[in-house]
Amino acid sequence: MSVHIGRDQYALAWDRATPPVVMVASGEVIEVDALDASCGQITADSNVADLANLDFERVDQVHGPIAIAGAEPGDTLQVDLLDFQPGNWGWTAAIPGFGLLADEFPDPALRITRLDGPRAEFLPGVRVPLAPFCGVLGVAPPKPGPHSTIPPDVFGGNMDTRHLTAGTTLFLPVFAPGALFSLGDGHAAQGDGEVCGTAIETPMRVEVRLTVRKDLHLTGPEFQTAGPLATSTNTGPWYATDGIGADLMEAARDAVRRMIDYLGRVHGLAAVDAYLLCSIACDLKISEIVDVPNWIVTAYCPLAIFG
Amino acid sequence: MSVHIGRDQYALAWDRATPPVVMVASGEVIEVDALDASCGQITADSNVADLANLDFERVDQVHGPIAIAGAEPGDTLQVDLLDFQPGNWGWTAAIPGFGLLADEFPDPALRITRLDGPRAEFLPGVRVPLAPFCGVLGVAPPKPGPHSTIPPDVFGGNMDTRHLTAGTTLFLPVFAPGALFSLGDGHAAQGDGEVCGTAIETPMRVEVRLTVRKDLHLTGPEFQTAGPLATSTNTGPWYATDGIGADLMEAARDAVRRMIDYLGRVHGLAAVDAYLLCSIACDLKISEIVDVPNWIVTAYCPLAIFG
Repeated sequence: MSVHIGRDQYALAWDRATPPVVMVASGEVIEVDALDASCGQITADSNVADLANLDFERVDQVHGPIAIAGAEPGDTLQVDLLDFQPGNWGWTAAIPGFGLLADEFPDPALRITRLDGPRAEFLPGVRVPLAPFCGVLGVAPPKPGPHSTIPPDVFGGNMDTRHLTAGTTLFLPVFAPGALFSLGDGHAAQGDGEVCGTAIETPMRVEVRLTVRKDLHLTGPEFQTAGPLATSTNTGPWYATDGIGADLMEAARDAVRRMIDYLGRVHGLAAVDAYLLCSIACDLKISEIVDVPNWIVTAYCPLAIFG
Repeated sequence: MSVHIGRDQYALAWDRATPPVVMVASGEVIEVDALDASCGQITADSNVADLANLDFERVDQVHGPIAIAGAEPGDTLQVDLLDFQPGNWGWTAAIPGFGLLADEFPDPALRITRLDGPRAEFLPGVRVPLAPFCGVLGVAPPKPGPHSTIPPDVFGGNMDTRHLTAGTTLFLPVFAPGALFSLGDGHAAQGDGEVCGTAIETPMRVEVRLTVRKDLHLTGPEFQTAGPLATSTNTGPWYATDGIGADLMEAARDAVRRMIDYLGRVHGLAAVDAYLLCSIACDLKISEIVDVPNWIVTAYCPLAIFG
């Protein structure tokens, strides 16, 4: 591997003015050794008390940026996602004030999961298949100045999109000369939505190929998967709960509340464990968005995780 | 089949006061011969001019209601979805004023599709696998008086949920003595979201088993599928487009706009055809809903439909 980005090569904000750590040719393969999203503050030995000491200024660091020769605003950066190798442990947390049901889960919770096979035993008897990816993949934003790494935007960033796994090709619009690509936020497994705000967070070794596309002009992130979706979880029946109403956010909250209720009622999980499990394994779909005035968001749990 | 509900046995509103057309025992199998959601106003020979004459008072009729002996408020009605047989044709329309991008598609459009095999040729070279279900499945609402059949609610109704296919078991909370179950709105194929407001709408012969569950107490619809999701479309790569922002509805609109752009740019579809195709074949997922203040809704198109 000719180009390697190390775990100490990161920025704590998106900023067009951040100087690149390296300049590569279009088409080159890059290896990144990324710290987990806590920037190394949480370890395999952490406990819930450590969450209180988390320095949020250091969360969701972005490894890079990498300049790609010839990339100009208006081009597209093609990111071939070649390989993701998670660490041998990961963490999942309910962080006070953060997450879809933050008001209902005010207390911190932390769960450390060993990652030593194709499925992680997240809770006793609950084995979640690994489907590793990076929550953060982005280029320099269109506007100058520092931008928080938490919200995603048209330049990508913290997209937390579970289907950006190995084999997928991501397309990002370029806004700055050299594109200035960065990544981070390794996730060993996550559901669509990432409802508690964290996945199975893990250090990640990543391989991507970066190619400048002069022929493609996009306004936001687009991607193509290599094959069928969710092959590791879409292997058996799913249980689904609906949230229905005039506000999609409230509908999503209702759907997740009902899934937490189901996971307690049928699988005996404590509410906070069910909430974390929804985040790492359950998917949010918009079932309908046209039957005025009520929309439906549905939470889907793959029952294969209980097998 | 002992119990048959005919195509002329329907109501035009949800109403606890509507007398049941039949009373059945818990566990009985019912066959329903349902008109399409236009209540027979649109036929295989209709053209776009006929949309202007559509009487919306007669749209989304609900076949039934069926009383189930012993069902009481607080119980759950278990609906085993046994079989769906669509007609040999279906329609898909952009109806002015209706749909996720109604403001951008002000003109009516109608497409009639022949349904004579496992895949429907929706457009030349675009073959969408059939995955038939009913958009409408519901019980009498908790509140008295007539309710429009358009919006779904905690009693089910017009849920337009594509995974309610044969083999799935649906659970609906019961709000009225006898539950008073009805169904309708046959869909031969639909994506998560039903973004233009119509699926491949078709008459449908339906078989369901209705069972009263005294042991289960729900606050909204829940369901369990028989196996993996979307087996007919999740057979190859998907192309995906993101909508990103602080409002889920606007994010969904952006995601669909970008998918329409992709379908035009890469597959040569006219914008309105792409919009209708999104409705019958593309899925909306909430990729993330926690990275304050920006959420991501992603539209996914299964590329197998171009195979």
